[in-house]
Amino acid sequence: MRGETGFQTGECPDVLVLFGATGDLARRMIWPSLFHLVRDGLLPETVRIVGVGRKPLDPADFRVQLDASLRNFLPDDVIDAKALHALLERVEYAHAAVTADDQFDAGNLPALLQTCGRVLYFLSVSPTHYGAICRGLGAAGLVNAASRIILEKPIGHDQQSGRAVNAAVAEVFGEQQVFRIDHYLGKETVQNLAALRFGNALFEPLWNKNAIDNVQITVAETVGVEGRWSYYDDAGALRDMVQNHLLQLVALVAMEPPQSLDPDAVRTEKVKVLRSLKPITAADVASRTVRGQYAAGMAAGNAVPGYNQEEGARGNSHTESFVALRCEIENWRWAGVPFYLRTGKRLQSRRTDIVIQFKPVPHNIFAIDNAALPANRLVIRLQPEERITLEVMGKQPGLSGIRLQPMQLDLSLTDAFGRVRSRIAYERLLLDAIKGDNTLFVRRDEVEAAWHFIDGIQQCWRQTGEAPRAYPAGSWGPSAAIALAERHGHSWYE
Amino acid sequence: MRGETGFQTGECPDVLVLFGATGDLARRMIWPSLFHLVRDGLLPETVRIVGVGRKPLDPADFRVQLDASLRNFLPDDVIDAKALHALLERVEYAHAAVTADDQFDAGNLPALLQTCGRVLYFLSVSPTHYGAICRGLGAAGLVNAASRIILEKPIGHDQQSGRAVNAAVAEVFGEQQVFRIDHYLGKETVQNLAALRFGNALFEPLWNKNAIDNVQITVAETVGVEGRWSYYDDAGALRDMVQNHLLQLVALVAMEPPQSLDPDAVRTEKVKVLRSLKPITAADVASRTVRGQYAAGMAAGNAVPGYNQEEGARGNSHTESFVALRCEIENWRWAGVPFYLRTGKRLQSRRTDIVIQFKPVPHNIFAIDNAALPANRLVIRLQPEERITLEVMGKQPGLSGIRLQPMQLDLSLTDAFGRVRSRIAYERLLLDAIKGDNTLFVRRDEVEAAWHFIDGIQQCWRQTGEAPRAYPAGSWGPSAAIALAERHGHSWYE
Repeated sequence: MRGETGFQTGECPDVLVLFGATGDLARRMIWPSLFHLVRDGLLPETVRIVGVGRKPLDPADFRVQLDASLRNFLPDDVIDAKALHALLERVEYAHAAVTADDQFDAGNLPALLQTCGRVLYFLSVSPTHYGAICRGLGAAGLVNAASRIILEKPIGHDQQSGRAVNAAVAEVFGEQQVFRIDHYLGKETVQNLAALRFGNALFEPLWNKNAIDNVQITVAETVGVEGRWSYYDDAGALRDMVQNHLLQLVALVAMEPPQSLDPDAVRTEKVKVLRSLKPITAADVASRTVRGQYAAGMAAGNAVPGYNQEEGARGNSHTESFVALRCEIENWRWAGVPFYLRTGKRLQSRRTDIVIQFKPVPHNIFAIDNAALPANRLVIRLQPEERITLEVMGKQPGLSGIRLQPMQLDLSLTDAFGRVRSRIAYERLLLDAIKGDNTLFVRRDEVEAAWHFIDGIQQCWRQTGEAPRAYPAGSWGPSAAIALAERHGHSWYE
Repeated sequence: MRGETGFQTGECPDVLVLFGATGDLARRMIWPSLFHLVRDGLLPETVRIVGVGRKPLDPADFRVQLDASLRNFLPDDVIDAKALHALLERVEYAHAAVTADDQFDAGNLPALLQTCGRVLYFLSVSPTHYGAICRGLGAAGLVNAASRIILEKPIGHDQQSGRAVNAAVAEVFGEQQVFRIDHYLGKETVQNLAALRFGNALFEPLWNKNAIDNVQITVAETVGVEGRWSYYDDAGALRDMVQNHLLQLVALVAMEPPQSLDPDAVRTEKVKVLRSLKPITAADVASRTVRGQYAAGMAAGNAVPGYNQEEGARGNSHTESFVALRCEIENWRWAGVPFYLRTGKRLQSRRTDIVIQFKPVPHNIFAIDNAALPANRLVIRLQPEERITLEVMGKQPGLSGIRLQPMQLDLSLTDAFGRVRSRIAYERLLLDAIKGDNTLFVRRDEVEAAWHFIDGIQQCWRQTGEAPRAYPAGSWGPSAAIALAERHGHSWYE
């Protein structure tokens, strides 16, 4: 590994080089994020922006394309002609490509970057190209101790391939120079969770097996595979969603208080959680996991086909489009507390949330007027809106007895205008990478620890060889997923 | 003692007999409360109401007086001619009095009550008459096992006299039949505090010396002695306010979770707290107490005289109009947690609140952006408005670092119309006495335990013989009261 020190936090790159500049993700997320940063004056003016595509293109033509794309993807009330112009005039274009024999053709990139000391690369391309691009950039002399690289996509498809990708990147970039994105970590609410846990003395004494009954993480999508059947079929829900997004949320919820907000202090606590996940084995895979695959059903009021009837589907695939897990974390804080995870496509509603379900009161002294007292709950919602709510019981005003009633306390601050613009998670992440702060990026050992846990499950599934359970599009997944929690006296939060 | 069983909870009296029916408290609080209960349909229709005064009066004349008084003391938007009529037509009048030689002249009361099985007496008269009235009612055959008695005023002026009053009452009424009012206990917020503590699993694990730094109870008045100099001068702030109101609030905050809401279960927990108060001794009276007396100053923008210049003042009194205490509760839950109490007249603002000041976070990981993190706080406000607020830190929305900002979470439920009519505490207490539920009334042993603690302080003060410290009207009391808390690193909540 070289360049372990990178440049110091706060040192700003001279240029941001975006590979995959004309790709879908770039058009939907990255360019709009750059627009917002420019509009809000947050992107230092010294930072040049170079879009990289496979084909040679006149920079002026690229800017015209980009202008149209931004106008398409940005909400009308956000578009600001001045800011748009300010962004576009900073944008250059270069062509470079990975060839069929996995070599890197640097195209005109070296010429464009020759005067640049500090380059921040952003690879918004298939992770199968990460190795070739990194090696190619290194060979072309385009990497030094002041370079950084953002990796957008999941790293590998199991521990072995993940290690291989990381190793290839590490031949050229030191770990401190690598910024692996999990865009869930860029959500405002995820950072507010840290603020609540560690900025208040109230929550930490409750944040353990004594007070918490179970934790639930749901990432529910209403969409199907959306024309990406072939890509998705190679992965499945476990690899595509759980390995990265859901396990990252588990790590954030469950981690010990870090010594500081230093990136490595935080990520060391996260990796400890991932390594404490109790392995799922052949003996308990049937009781701790549920695989599902959507059958024909409804979505947004329309009839939709089943997974194996989607456009591009090849025969009778057993890939899961839904997975539910009962995880356990083997440490003193969490022993015995189930972490229920579920994610799937074609579910009833689009929703991402983390639910901290507290234990019920040990003894109900209000039983005469309140036969059952709902237990407290902290709901951290990431989608569709970002919000944190604490559910507590209060006294109903009135003179007869003490009747309790649930209250929802909103723990989300709003801005000076009484609202929060829902920022694109990439805005935060881009800005942090520009500043060189990799707290919110996934460290190599985290990726590999997550794959280790996931590989164990995949192996059990391969051994049993069972087909995933069918669930109708528009439902909450197979009924076995309900049973997974109910069997232990728990219920999914609706 | 007789009639220990009384009648069962839920059994309704046939008649409410109000002694002191033309007095100040009755006109300001009790009759308006009865009006609200009648208007809201909460006072059972079978309950007759007999006002008792010293002088014979035609019942019709009394009703005319009462009508005028209600119209005077009720807010205009509350007066409802139909409800007013409904109340007045239920009201009768009797005369009865304590004579100069402390005998009870039952007047025409026996005649009025002869057909009544279950009588609820309400003594809104000087506590020096309690014994004579009780004995007189007993001698006249007006008390049986189904009678109840509400005692409005503080019981005695020290432990010995308090015991004497309680003993005189107990000659005639069993303890279950006695309802000693402390009107602070009728506040909605005080009951909401119990709902929050015992209806949620969140608060109890924090409710102890590990999480709580100190507790502060402030009962601040802006008024002076208001023409009652002579009465007040016999008592002083410690006896007039601390012995009853402030110590009752201490007991509610500090009590262990009761086994049930059964009146004696709750009151047994409260008396345990009062008996655990660490006595204030000659050795620490100077460091744990502050006595003050207001000097001339300002109130509501007007110049006002000092305590010893008030109308009716006799010379150079050393009675305190302000007191601040640092109390400690000697049990496992609270050892080492200061309970700061203060109350006074002619203070800067009218305010009654209980502040639970939590400890600061043990380690601030946000120090770069947040040098100091204010500690969490639960503020239970009883006056001027009723409200419970939890102060926590949340993340300021935004992309740069994690900046924390205080949030105030409102823990008070509102009614169906999104608001809470601030009820008179007596409404709740009257209704509970009518139902026979004495949970919110002070038990004999509580009164005597409170006097025991207070007597210890009075004795120390007598021994030192120091004059109270002067403070200007309109201030927050003597500066020594500030020092009382600051000396231990604490600050009064403002």
